[in-house]
Amino acid sequence: MHIVIAPDSFKGSLTSIQASEVMKRAVQSVDRHNHVTLKPMADGGEGTLASMLVATGGQRITVACTGALGETIHASYGIIHSDKAIIECAEIAGLIQVPENKRHPAFTTTFGIGEVIKDALDRGCRRFVIALGGSATNDGGSGMLKALGMKSVNANGDDAGYFGKDVKHISQVSFDAIDSRLADADIEVACDVDNPLLGDSGATYVYGPQKGLKTSELSQYDTALKQYANNVESVLGEQLQTVPGSGAAGGLGFALLAIGGRLISGAELIADAMKLEKAVQGADVVLTGEGQSDEQTLYGKAPGYIADLAQKHHTTAVLISGSLDGDVSVLREKFSGCFSIVNKPMSLQECMGQAEKLLYEQTAQVIQLLHQFQR
Amino acid sequence: MHIVIAPDSFKGSLTSIQASEVMKRAVQSVDRHNHVTLKPMADGGEGTLASMLVATGGQRITVACTGALGETIHASYGIIHSDKAIIECAEIAGLIQVPENKRHPAFTTTFGIGEVIKDALDRGCRRFVIALGGSATNDGGSGMLKALGMKSVNANGDDAGYFGKDVKHISQVSFDAIDSRLADADIEVACDVDNPLLGDSGATYVYGPQKGLKTSELSQYDTALKQYANNVESVLGEQLQTVPGSGAAGGLGFALLAIGGRLISGAELIADAMKLEKAVQGADVVLTGEGQSDEQTLYGKAPGYIADLAQKHHTTAVLISGSLDGDVSVLREKFSGCFSIVNKPMSLQECMGQAEKLLYEQTAQVIQLLHQFQR
Repeated sequence: MHIVIAPDSFKGSLTSIQASEVMKRAVQSVDRHNHVTLKPMADGGEGTLASMLVATGGQRITVACTGALGETIHASYGIIHSDKAIIECAEIAGLIQVPENKRHPAFTTTFGIGEVIKDALDRGCRRFVIALGGSATNDGGSGMLKALGMKSVNANGDDAGYFGKDVKHISQVSFDAIDSRLADADIEVACDVDNPLLGDSGATYVYGPQKGLKTSELSQYDTALKQYANNVESVLGEQLQTVPGSGAAGGLGFALLAIGGRLISGAELIADAMKLEKAVQGADVVLTGEGQSDEQTLYGKAPGYIADLAQKHHTTAVLISGSLDGDVSVLREKFSGCFSIVNKPMSLQECMGQAEKLLYEQTAQVIQLLHQFQR
Repeated sequence: MHIVIAPDSFKGSLTSIQASEVMKRAVQSVDRHNHVTLKPMADGGEGTLASMLVATGGQRITVACTGALGETIHASYGIIHSDKAIIECAEIAGLIQVPENKRHPAFTTTFGIGEVIKDALDRGCRRFVIALGGSATNDGGSGMLKALGMKSVNANGDDAGYFGKDVKHISQVSFDAIDSRLADADIEVACDVDNPLLGDSGATYVYGPQKGLKTSELSQYDTALKQYANNVESVLGEQLQTVPGSGAAGGLGFALLAIGGRLISGAELIADAMKLEKAVQGADVVLTGEGQSDEQTLYGKAPGYIADLAQKHHTTAVLISGSLDGDVSVLREKFSGCFSIVNKPMSLQECMGQAEKLLYEQTAQVIQLLHQFQR
C-alpha cells in the first residue's frame, strides 16, 4: 500500500515532523512493505523550513547573517528542486530567538532576511518561498530592502539605518541599486494573515504589542511606517500598503510586495512547493492530522487542503487529530474518515502527555483496518 | 456492503439493542443500500431474550405464570427457529422485579420458570436456551423442578412447598412424575459463573447476600441446599452439586443439570442460537462493541467471540467501544480495527451522557472510510 503521511503539528505535543515519524512507524508496524511518503505539513509559521526539507529531501544551507538584534548569527534556509529557496523568517529574525527582556521593535531588523535572499541569488536560486510567521520586527521590511540594495536616507541625507527605530527618520528611498537579479525572481510569500500595513488592523496595532511595543508607542510606529510606505510607493508608482497581508511580519509583507512577491495562503503554497498533489495522486491513502480539528479545518488549514486534493484524485483521506470538535459530520464530508487519538475518557493534559503513543496506536488501527479490509 | 452489527451493551448507557440500532442508522446514513443484519449480543444476563428476538426475528410469547414472590405475573419468553425456546430467568424470577424491601430468598421461587418450560413443551419446543443471570432466588431450582413434576415432601410426608424457606424441610424427592417430554429435550443453559452449588464459593455464600440473606442466615440456607441436593442426587444416581455453574442463579444451575441441561458459556451459546457464525460468514464487515474493552474482552466476552468468528471466516471485524484500556495492541491482534467512541478529551460522565451521538458518529466514520477505500 502506498501511504502519504502529511500531518500538521499537534500544537503543544508534537511538531509535524515528529507526528509524521510516529505515524510512519505505526504504518510500517502493520506491514513493513507499506510504501510511505512523508510530507509533514506547515502553514508558513515556525517549522516550515524543517517540514519542507523532510518533504522534499532538499538541502539545508547555513549562512552567517544579521540576526534580529543586529548581531551576527548562523541561520539556515533550504534549497529544494535545485533552484528554489525556502526561507523561514523566524529562523533569521524570529521572536523566539530574542530574549524576552530584549524584545522591542526599535532594536530589531529584517536585514538578515535580505542577506539570506542575496545568498540564495548567489547560488543561482530564482524561485523563492518565504514563510513569514513569527517575526520579532516591525520595520516594514526596510531592513530586508536595504540588504538588497535599497537606499534610505534621513533629512540630512545620511543613511537612515536598518532597525525599527530608524524607520521614522527615513525621508527618502531609492531602488536604483536594488539587486537586479530580483527582476527575474519568482517570490511566493506564505502568509496566513490579511492585515494591511497600517491603521487599527495593521502591523503595528495588531502585532506590535506582542513584539514589545507599549500602547503609548503604537501611534508613532504606525506613523513611521506610513511615511516610509508612502516614500516607497511614490518611487515604485504602486499602492501596496492596503494589500491584504502587507501588514504581515511587521510589514515585511509590504516590502516583499515591493520587490514583486506574491502573498499566498500558507498551507496551499507549502503544499505546492512540496509537490503534495503529485504524491496524493499516486497514493492509496493519505493520512493527515492536527492537534484540534473542527469545521475551521476545512478553511485554509493544511488538513483541509489535503482533503481537497484527495477528493480531486479520489484518494482515501483520513484525519487523525487530537480532538474532533463541533459538527464532526461536516468534516466527514471532506475526509473519508476522521478519528481522534483519544481512546478513552481522559483529560486534555493526559491526552497531550501521551500524544505520541495515542497517535501511534490510532494510526496503526486505521491502517490495519484498511489492510485487512482490502485483503 | 453487507454489515453485521453485533454489539454487546454499553453498560450504563445503551442496551445492546439500542446500540445496534444506533449503529444501523449510522451505517445506513453512509449508504442506504448497505445491507444490515442486526445481532445485538448478550451473555445470558438481563436483556438476553430481547436480543435474541431482534437477532432471529423470533416470536415473543407472553404467558401467565408464577412470579418470584409466588404472585401471578405475565412473563415473556421467545420461540425461535420454530421449536427453540429462549427463556430468560430474570423475566420470570428476576431480582429487579422484586421490590427491595421484599427481597429475601425465603419468599422467592423458581416455580414460574418450570411453568414456562412446560408452556414451551406444550407448544412443541424440544430445544431450550435458558439464560440464568439475575435471579432473585436461592431455592436450588426446587421450585422449577416441582412445576415440572418433581414431588418433594417433608418429614411428615406432606408436600414441601416451593419457596426458598421450604427447601430445608424437603426430606424426600421423587422424579417419577417429572414431565416425560424433558427426556427428548435439549437444554442449553447460558451460564457465566462457575460456582458450585454449595460451600464458601457456592450459591448461598456468594450470591445470597445480594438477594437479601443476612450473614447469620447463610449457614442454614447452605445446609438446606446440601440436604436437598443429596436427596436429588441419590434419586438420580448422579453427582451434580460440584459441577461448575451448578451454583448459578441460586442453584437453578443444579436443577437444570438434574433434568439433563448442559451449562455453556453465555456469549458463545447466545451467538450460536442467533446463528451468528452464518451471518459473519456472509458479511463484508462485522461491527461489535461494548462499554469498555481491554485484554479481557478476548476471553469469553461477546466481542472477543465475534473476533474469533471473523478471523475464522476472514471477515473484517471492527470493535467500537466506549473506552479502550490496557494494551490496545493485544486487541488489534484479534480485530481488524479498534476504536473508541470518545472523540476528544472528556470525562467518563460526559462520554456516557452522549454515548448515542458518539457511537453514531464513530460508526459512520468507520463505515464511510471502508466505503470510500473500496471505491
